[in-house]
Amino acid sequence: MDRRIDRLQRIGAARPGTILLSGGLPAAELFPKQALARSFLTVLDQPNRTNGLQYGWPEGDLALRSWIASRLRRRGAVHVQSDDVIITSGAQQAIDLAARVLYRPGDRVGVDAESYPAALDLFRSRGLQLAAADERVAGFYCMPSVSNPRGLEFGPAARQCILNRLETGDVSAIEDDAYAELRFDGTETRPLCADAPDGVLHVGTFSKVLCPGLRVGWLVPPRRLFQEMLAAKQEADLQAGGLAQAVLEHYLRTNDYDAHVAAARDFYAGRADALVTALRKELPQASFCEPQGSFAVFVETDLCGDDIDLLSVSLAHGVSFDPGRAFRREGRASPLSMRLAFACEPAERIAEGVARLAAAFRAYVHRSGDRAQTAT
Amino acid sequence: MDRRIDRLQRIGAARPGTILLSGGLPAAELFPKQALARSFLTVLDQPNRTNGLQYGWPEGDLALRSWIASRLRRRGAVHVQSDDVIITSGAQQAIDLAARVLYRPGDRVGVDAESYPAALDLFRSRGLQLAAADERVAGFYCMPSVSNPRGLEFGPAARQCILNRLETGDVSAIEDDAYAELRFDGTETRPLCADAPDGVLHVGTFSKVLCPGLRVGWLVPPRRLFQEMLAAKQEADLQAGGLAQAVLEHYLRTNDYDAHVAAARDFYAGRADALVTALRKELPQASFCEPQGSFAVFVETDLCGDDIDLLSVSLAHGVSFDPGRAFRREGRASPLSMRLAFACEPAERIAEGVARLAAAFRAYVHRSGDRAQTAT
Repeated sequence: MDRRIDRLQRIGAARPGTILLSGGLPAAELFPKQALARSFLTVLDQPNRTNGLQYGWPEGDLALRSWIASRLRRRGAVHVQSDDVIITSGAQQAIDLAARVLYRPGDRVGVDAESYPAALDLFRSRGLQLAAADERVAGFYCMPSVSNPRGLEFGPAARQCILNRLETGDVSAIEDDAYAELRFDGTETRPLCADAPDGVLHVGTFSKVLCPGLRVGWLVPPRRLFQEMLAAKQEADLQAGGLAQAVLEHYLRTNDYDAHVAAARDFYAGRADALVTALRKELPQASFCEPQGSFAVFVETDLCGDDIDLLSVSLAHGVSFDPGRAFRREGRASPLSMRLAFACEPAERIAEGVARLAAAFRAYVHRSGDRAQTAT
Repeated sequence: MDRRIDRLQRIGAARPGTILLSGGLPAAELFPKQALARSFLTVLDQPNRTNGLQYGWPEGDLALRSWIASRLRRRGAVHVQSDDVIITSGAQQAIDLAARVLYRPGDRVGVDAESYPAALDLFRSRGLQLAAADERVAGFYCMPSVSNPRGLEFGPAARQCILNRLETGDVSAIEDDAYAELRFDGTETRPLCADAPDGVLHVGTFSKVLCPGLRVGWLVPPRRLFQEMLAAKQEADLQAGGLAQAVLEHYLRTNDYDAHVAAARDFYAGRADALVTALRKELPQASFCEPQGSFAVFVETDLCGDDIDLLSVSLAHGVSFDPGRAFRREGRASPLSMRLAFACEPAERIAEGVARLAAAFRAYVHRSGDRAQTAT
């Protein structure tokens, strides 16, 4: 991440009263604290020797892998068995492991024009070239079910385009499914790996729907890559947290996860509405798509400028956002764009945050004078 | 890891009655389950918003970093402040991050003739060349306080040799301090980073003294490398487990950690004695050093042979060990050697395990006939 963005976001997070429209954080009020506490006590109280506290195998807890495989089968990936799943330290590690095994420095990786910043940072720092999906690439990184930062599902043409390329057998795709469960309309999307089991490395996580602090995600590579991916996992950190896995497995076995997901979808849909309404009222000149899911909206303008400077002005107005350059394949700061997260603030603070943002925009444009011109 | 070793160890672990002298696992009976359960409940019950369940900063929990810095200062690394510490997903990740930032494929890394297998595997898979410490190298990986697999402290000459090389400023050392607290005589060793703050990347973990299932370790890089290491950490998995960090921090604040460490030292010293006594009785022809700490003894013989075949025979006799080739810089299987772990089995089973091992040795030598000759 750009050091300047990091510095500003830390200032914003530390300043009381700042309305946080930045970050991909879930709402803390949805964390099932009581149920997790019960699962912790039960797991720690079991009379077997380890209780998730001992070392485990690098692939992770078998019952948890079985649960993940079963859920993927329900969504159409009928080939996935528990033996295909590697538990990872969050989705980020799954992406890192996949990139480590698939790509060599200099390789071109196809990504959307805007994508998940920590994946882009990772690819860049590994010496990979970011390219459009229609260019000649060694592989793809994509979020077909619910994209970040736009919160949209791939259209049929974009999906088919990648599937056609995977059919040639000489490229692979990393499918980041982090937000897939959070489709506001409840659609259970069909993962890309269902249609190309031998070409897709499927990545998922409990961070968005349950909580990030357990750091449990997963990777389902094609079978031909499983052993190599497992070795990479072991080299990276031996295994994901054993206690976190044991607790999650118990939680999933003893609670109604579907009900939790459904409640989370409704909750976030309400906050998305609040943001969309506020944007239409306060920033009518900005353009964006209503998200189908996820925690955020990607907002674009036709104003030239520097989105980090705008963030600095916004923080002075008491509101944060994520500068658009962090999401852009090309890293451009201009024309001004931003990701606005709606997950962590209640509706009235979202409305107030967008009003502050509109004021910050005006102050920025005024201060910048003719440097902040409309891009033509 | 060699796939054959992995397959055999899984067979041994799954077969009831096998005496496990393999693995670097701590004794499960020392895990402070009740105290950790109390900390979990307290942390999850706190009225603040996140309780370790939310995303955190990549460097980790400030209070935990402060505790680690303070403990390193007590051991003589007086320069270490909380801002110097990065919480990692176990020591293995700290080694991986350090290697990622320090080395490029083809670089030579100086390691002991025998060392920690998961680090050697990691270096090899990154295309690094393993070399002796006195060769021309880009850097070192070492365990100066308590080595793995021998459980010995560096002698003054070996330590000074590395310090002299670090003084030139063109090489760095990864100091793996995983077992440093487990010196049976209670010595608080002075970490290498105390004598070369700008050249040493110090690595530690709670896995050996408390429990591995929390996956919390740390990395203290030289200040000039801190931001680069932090970016690498974020790319690898965003952050270490938030809940695990919060619980550990609470546990350390509300329990007598020094007393826990002292009890663990005595406990493991007793088991080490049991193994040493059994070896002298049952395998008088084998050579080894009495360990000063750690969980294991490295046993060498002058017999040619294949240590994986010997493991296979041993499992049939109901005892496992770690084949010596996994620890050897050169990866040689012969002459036969092995690491015997004493941490996880009570004294009477250690004695029985070594008796079984001696029988397996005899069967192996008998079966191999003149292929198992004394190396000359």
